[in-house]
Amino acid sequence: MTRLTPSLPTTQNSAWISETIPHMGAAFSLKTTQKLDEIQSPFQNIAIYATEHWGNLMVIDDAFMLTSLENFVYHEMLSHPALFTHPTPKDVVIIGGGDCGTLSEVLKHPGVENVTQIDIDEQVTRMAEKWFPELCARNADPRAELRFDDGIKFMREAADASADIIIVDSTDPIGPGEGLFGAAFIADCYRVLRTGGIMVSQSESPFYHMDVLQNVHRAMLHAGFADRRALLFPQPVYPGGSITCTLARKDANLNSFRTDDALNKTFPTRYYNAGTHQGALTPPEFVREALSII
Amino acid sequence: MTRLTPSLPTTQNSAWISETIPHMGAAFSLKTTQKLDEIQSPFQNIAIYATEHWGNLMVIDDAFMLTSLENFVYHEMLSHPALFTHPTPKDVVIIGGGDCGTLSEVLKHPGVENVTQIDIDEQVTRMAEKWFPELCARNADPRAELRFDDGIKFMREAADASADIIIVDSTDPIGPGEGLFGAAFIADCYRVLRTGGIMVSQSESPFYHMDVLQNVHRAMLHAGFADRRALLFPQPVYPGGSITCTLARKDANLNSFRTDDALNKTFPTRYYNAGTHQGALTPPEFVREALSII
Repeated sequence: MTRLTPSLPTTQNSAWISETIPHMGAAFSLKTTQKLDEIQSPFQNIAIYATEHWGNLMVIDDAFMLTSLENFVYHEMLSHPALFTHPTPKDVVIIGGGDCGTLSEVLKHPGVENVTQIDIDEQVTRMAEKWFPELCARNADPRAELRFDDGIKFMREAADASADIIIVDSTDPIGPGEGLFGAAFIADCYRVLRTGGIMVSQSESPFYHMDVLQNVHRAMLHAGFADRRALLFPQPVYPGGSITCTLARKDANLNSFRTDDALNKTFPTRYYNAGTHQGALTPPEFVREALSII
Repeated sequence: MTRLTPSLPTTQNSAWISETIPHMGAAFSLKTTQKLDEIQSPFQNIAIYATEHWGNLMVIDDAFMLTSLENFVYHEMLSHPALFTHPTPKDVVIIGGGDCGTLSEVLKHPGVENVTQIDIDEQVTRMAEKWFPELCARNADPRAELRFDDGIKFMREAADASADIIIVDSTDPIGPGEGLFGAAFIADCYRVLRTGGIMVSQSESPFYHMDVLQNVHRAMLHAGFADRRALLFPQPVYPGGSITCTLARKDANLNSFRTDDALNKTFPTRYYNAGTHQGALTPPEFVREALSII
């Protein structure tokens, strides 16, 4: 993400950090109190800031990744709709997701037996352990395996019909995350899923990146997924203030889910509930229209 | 809204305009190509900018009010959920709403017989006619009456049981809009509504202004409304990227609506549909919890 004005601090506003989205002529800024940490990993620059009002902020290659204040929305929506749709989700794969927030939500489902997380950059997880420990509290769960490797290669080599749910918790489609939006990777996910299995992919904001959303849906359609659904939810720290994840299901649809289990879930959530799940299944008109012509 | 860093342009970034939210340590900026217009009305400063990617932008007292690109979400959600819930909405009152976007949506409902809009500041409407003509295209509809007066006074003097729907399309609860969030005004709305009538109020973002949302709900509860519901929707130009409107109904609930009419609506929409309406009726968990303790 190129940093442009108005993001950069002068002496007077050295506390502000900004993410600029050039193609939209927009920028979002947070006031920070200090830079807590920074590392140049083999893949990307990872920085942690303390903010005035959002808790800690992780920034990867100048893009805001997550804050303590509101990451719960994203992590809950990336996991619970899929997990409450599949009748018996046992084997879950997370590609990316190095901050472990999605992993933590997945592990709340008692029926889950194995979660394999593959993030290419171990440093994301190390930074999360240090600065977002609440997201990593379940990392020692014996059902969880954390691997640091290339998710695209992992999926290419994974056995057919070996997963119930694949969650692609990626950064933007530039840099290390780019291939995770590609047709070849999505086709591999289809192959690796069992019948009735569900793929979930971060698919950007329809206000800012409708092309990404359309490309993801097109690749899922061509891969053979029987149903696809873009779930829109608010995410204040992301460009445009809202974002989608797209669910795609193999050999089954996404219309219904285990409503009773969602209503009687055995763990608390802060965004997700049966009603927000049901509501998210119908996208707004402009999204529906854009996806109807892919 | 106090302008703080990082909002203000230096010579290099004179094209950026920012809205800063001090209590959240956050700012949102848009790149402008020119200032098209500006007026100091008796009530507030109104400025219009051309932006690079969002069409025209209206700024009132340094707060971003609307853009050509995405105002449709707000105007549709402020009108259609209420109008498709009431069985026979004939008499509609809009308080504020001077840009006429909400009015335009209300007038799309063929059963509506009268819409009275009361905005305190005629200059907002004059600026909208000039720079957002698409929102004002229905202003000459014989069912519409545009008054420029104090909405609080109007509601205090309005006859009992004279309206089916009251929409409060206000600015933030500072400046001219402040009283529109107050208990006395909300109690007047209750009195002016007929049985089954619905009040709709802009009620800010739960991420940025949960206190405002709670206060509005508390005032509606005390006024006697039988049911209240916070509808959350994305709005990229507003602080936090999403906002709520709250519906409150007199002597009836908000659980159901005219689903068949919403599914077969006689006009196009870009955000609203029967599914987004149904979905918005269940707020996220953290909103539900915050409103359960008012």
